[in-house]
Amino acid sequence: MRNDLIPRFADLVVEFAANVQPGQVVAISSGPGKEELTRAVADAAYRRGAKFVDLMWFDSEIKRSRIAHADSTTLAYVPPWYGDRMLALGEQGAARIGIGPPVDPAALHGLDPGRAGLDRLPMLKEISTVVSERTTNWTAVACPIAAWAGLVHPELDEADALSRLWEEVAHVSRLDEADPAAAWRGRMAQLDGVAERLTEHHLDAVHFEGPGTDLTVGLLPSTRWLSAMFSRKDGLPHLVNLPSEEVFTTPDPLRADGVVRSTRPLALGGLVVEGLRVRFEGGRAVQIDADAGAEALRAQAESDEGAGLLGEVALVDRDSRIGMLGTTFYDTLLDENAASHIALGSAYRFTLDEQYLDRANRSEIHVDFMIGGDDVAVTGVTSTGERVPVLRDGDWQI
Amino acid sequence: MRNDLIPRFADLVVEFAANVQPGQVVAISSGPGKEELTRAVADAAYRRGAKFVDLMWFDSEIKRSRIAHADSTTLAYVPPWYGDRMLALGEQGAARIGIGPPVDPAALHGLDPGRAGLDRLPMLKEISTVVSERTTNWTAVACPIAAWAGLVHPELDEADALSRLWEEVAHVSRLDEADPAAAWRGRMAQLDGVAERLTEHHLDAVHFEGPGTDLTVGLLPSTRWLSAMFSRKDGLPHLVNLPSEEVFTTPDPLRADGVVRSTRPLALGGLVVEGLRVRFEGGRAVQIDADAGAEALRAQAESDEGAGLLGEVALVDRDSRIGMLGTTFYDTLLDENAASHIALGSAYRFTLDEQYLDRANRSEIHVDFMIGGDDVAVTGVTSTGERVPVLRDGDWQI
Repeated sequence: MRNDLIPRFADLVVEFAANVQPGQVVAISSGPGKEELTRAVADAAYRRGAKFVDLMWFDSEIKRSRIAHADSTTLAYVPPWYGDRMLALGEQGAARIGIGPPVDPAALHGLDPGRAGLDRLPMLKEISTVVSERTTNWTAVACPIAAWAGLVHPELDEADALSRLWEEVAHVSRLDEADPAAAWRGRMAQLDGVAERLTEHHLDAVHFEGPGTDLTVGLLPSTRWLSAMFSRKDGLPHLVNLPSEEVFTTPDPLRADGVVRSTRPLALGGLVVEGLRVRFEGGRAVQIDADAGAEALRAQAESDEGAGLLGEVALVDRDSRIGMLGTTFYDTLLDENAASHIALGSAYRFTLDEQYLDRANRSEIHVDFMIGGDDVAVTGVTSTGERVPVLRDGDWQI
Repeated sequence: MRNDLIPRFADLVVEFAANVQPGQVVAISSGPGKEELTRAVADAAYRRGAKFVDLMWFDSEIKRSRIAHADSTTLAYVPPWYGDRMLALGEQGAARIGIGPPVDPAALHGLDPGRAGLDRLPMLKEISTVVSERTTNWTAVACPIAAWAGLVHPELDEADALSRLWEEVAHVSRLDEADPAAAWRGRMAQLDGVAERLTEHHLDAVHFEGPGTDLTVGLLPSTRWLSAMFSRKDGLPHLVNLPSEEVFTTPDPLRADGVVRSTRPLALGGLVVEGLRVRFEGGRAVQIDADAGAEALRAQAESDEGAGLLGEVALVDRDSRIGMLGTTFYDTLLDENAASHIALGSAYRFTLDEQYLDRANRSEIHVDFMIGGDDVAVTGVTSTGERVPVLRDGDWQI
């Protein structure tokens, strides 16, 4: 790893992605293996004028001990001060920086999935509240750790795998650009333009066509398309995912019809779903098949009333650095940005006008799977039936 | 380090020192370099039936960035949720385990002491409240880390220094006993007996006599002597310091007279005070001299109104494993248990009947320094002038 990589990364995270302002409290979520980037981010935040850096350290090995040994009736317990802190960060208008992956992908291996599913930490329900209220400038970034690198590059030894993953994360995070923040501003301006034009077409549906795929996803009236360049309610911009390559919106959960074939493997709770095929009727995933791992997605899709319905539709063009790389990262933050995707489960609500909020899907899950690629044509359909080409051969048409 | 040392240590901490009960929330304070013991303690807590392990991770490198870069008007800021969490732990009747040293002794080197003094974290004023209310079963334990080992054993290379410090900490924590908890129960029963008999004598003062030392420390009426074996207000016993070798009480801050010579070096904010000599008049340290480092203690003693008055007097016999070892650990938790000591600054109040609470000393500081040894005789003086031998040649006489 290049010597200057960590400080460059930290500066990009603090100055561009989280966009930390002087006088702010900066909450950092991190954990073992991410010490160096965490300290560099904290140092950059203080140099930027932060009032206080509040570190939340999540050790997946302690989560493992909990799932292995604690009484099952206690596994869903979350101390009330965890949520209180998150709400206080919102009230303060704090900056929030998540240095991921949030859970070490190797730490929970071999545990009872039923017990593991009860402990949802470090997720907190108050995070959705704070995100919806748009009171914090936040970002989630990818930081390589050994166990994750071993998953992505099992053919390499530990040091080489970690070094290779760092190279890839540096590339997709555009740290290899002369001015990474400028590179991101350029890319986000392009995606914001696409999102704006998509919104102006007032599309009623999106139609995906390709090998094994003929799926129409209905959209809710008034829906806006967005990039990951969000703004706080006072207008302060921040990039919520670093990297991000998508534009996305909220579908009508009752209108998805047709068949779709996933174009990338889907990593799901330690399993990999390969060759996934899903049939939708009236919005619901009524048939889920795969060459391997179908049962993992089936279990998720049946976990609650909204889990079999769509909560997101997102478009990614061929300029995605993650897509071009071709690596499966087994991490949603990265993998979902490789190609256009849809998600079963919960929907973002801030893409909608208030009168339609109740029509967006609700669920405890949110599982993105990739359905786009150069050979998948994406076409917008207006309420009058007009067809608007959106992606052809992976290139924006709009 | 012996392979089984960490799990033995963790079991002693959880089952004996903190005395974790099934269903409890267990708050652990720890930091970099202490991962292995922290995880073992968490695992032992969950095996013991803990409901939740709440980790507070304090990274001294981030504290260093703060002191180096943050605006000085913000350095005393503590997010309100830090104190709220501590008070909530009290309301829950949680277990609290501090895995020390709380701050890496090397991390703050070279920073401006004035700025450093403004940031008192990880100390919180709410900790005193919770300790006084006796609502939590808590303990503070010593865990070797590399930077600390380098300070204690500068003549050794890093790995050897850490290994040597582990041997010493294991020994003074009685982990090398066949049954460490039984060894501690025995030692604490002995010290509790001494404390009880000292209390029954209703001493009015304690007189220290030795080379360079002739000091009389007045005691407040009703004062009780205690070992570090505390009990929660519901009676649950817990050992607040592991290791601990002392019995202590609260002096009358207005009655200390004479001269005293320290018998061990005193580590103070990165400096070492050697050959310390202090003269007391009417309770106050009116003259502080030393072969080296006197100014560090003088600055502390002048930092507030109560800082030059006594807040603690503690007796340690020659059976102290820390005293026998002869190592200076540059860590109060260990060093204060090497020999009898007095402390400038704040006093514990729970040794006193309610009507005398207001007479105990108050200060922002609490600096223990060692004044006892085999050649220092300790004698109790009753209100009628009767003299009660307490320590002769380092052996209890009571």
